Amino acid sequence: MTESKGLLLVVSGPAGSGKSTVLAEVVKDEAFAYSVSATTRQPRPGEINGVNYHFITREQFEEHVKNGDFVEYTEYVGNCYGTLYSEIKGKTDEGINVILELEVQGAENVKRMFPDAVLVWLLPPNYTTLEQRLRGRGTETDDVITKRMNTAVKELGKFSLYDYVVISENGKPDDAVRSIKEIVNAEKHKVSRTNNFVDNFLNN
Amino acid sequence: MTESKGLLLVVSGPAGSGKSTVLAEVVKDEAFAYSVSATTRQPRPGEINGVNYHFITREQFEEHVKNGDFVEYTEYVGNCYGTLYSEIKGKTDEGINVILELEVQGAENVKRMFPDAVLVWLLPPNYTTLEQRLRGRGTETDDVITKRMNTAVKELGKFSLYDYVVISENGKPDDAVRSIKEIVNAEKHKVSRTNNFVDNFLNN
Repeated sequence: MTESKGLLLVVSGPAGSGKSTVLAEVVKDEAFAYSVSATTRQPRPGEINGVNYHFITREQFEEHVKNGDFVEYTEYVGNCYGTLYSEIKGKTDEGINVILELEVQGAENVKRMFPDAVLVWLLPPNYTTLEQRLRGRGTETDDVITKRMNTAVKELGKFSLYDYVVISENGKPDDAVRSIKEIVNAEKHKVSRTNNFVDNFLNN
Repeated sequence: MTESKGLLLVVSGPAGSGKSTVLAEVVKDEAFAYSVSATTRQPRPGEINGVNYHFITREQFEEHVKNGDFVEYTEYVGNCYGTLYSEIKGKTDEGINVILELEVQGAENVKRMFPDAVLVWLLPPNYTTLEQRLRGRGTETDDVITKRMNTAVKELGKFSLYDYVVISENGKPDDAVRSIKEIVNAEKHKVSRTNNFVDNFLNN
């Protein structure tokens, strides 16, 4: 009688937050899955339709746009990418918690379409650590790092739009993984998510 | 920077909900503790002051009442019992999650004094199971069972006053124990519980 459907979990965090590592670990649990995006780009070797992406034609993509089938979509270097409403609905109906990794603007849109979505920040402990992680990679120029730090600061302006904040401590991704799972499990016990709980209780 | 203080957790549930079993298990975790009530009754053999109760005189009790020191108090067969504000504050400041086992009226009062308190229902899966558990004890008369069932139904009228509902399935107290701990851990990640998170993040 408590929530048996999957939840929609939106996770945001700056480059260097450890998002990819943490979420890759979360989805090893079969109760969780990434939302599979639709795209017009060609599959790369090894990519499987319906697993890595839903590979569709530009005509199909535009048809989805016209029909309002996308929760959000974007064009990037000539290819279109989008999250289908049906993709989320199908999985959550099966009881799977669907993870969307989104920037603040996308998270805001999803929250508008799915008010029951749970929005989580994944952040390093502080600004200094974030900068150290970005520099530590040794793959980005100073300009790129400065730009990323500025984006992070700007996005934090929307901090209170989110429901939860999880800190990815250095070397402790498992703590963040556990916290995300605990948040989802706890949310399922929310009185505000129950439907006719008392009626069901009394009549059974 | 996320919540390091302990939470105040109020747990309500009818006789037969499995509350005592579940909470006795939760407090085995040193991050949790019962609130120790103050009472004017005499200690029974083996009862320790400050552990089972704070044993105080009626004069001391009345002084506390006069000073508004109690979150809630009641008189029962000639003895007074009460929850001291200082008892809750002292433990939560130390980072301990304090559990108060209360009926609906008491829970309502606590929520008024501590808006940050987390209110949890602990319930059997349904009415039939509740009745079976009460009858199964074989210790109460039909009259007492009917009275308890009526109380349970009446208290459920305040269902939506609570934040969470945890079901104690037959033979699975551990599931309820885990859920309660997950709820508390998740609550500590709530954006609404953080103080100056963004400022602290940016200045460290």
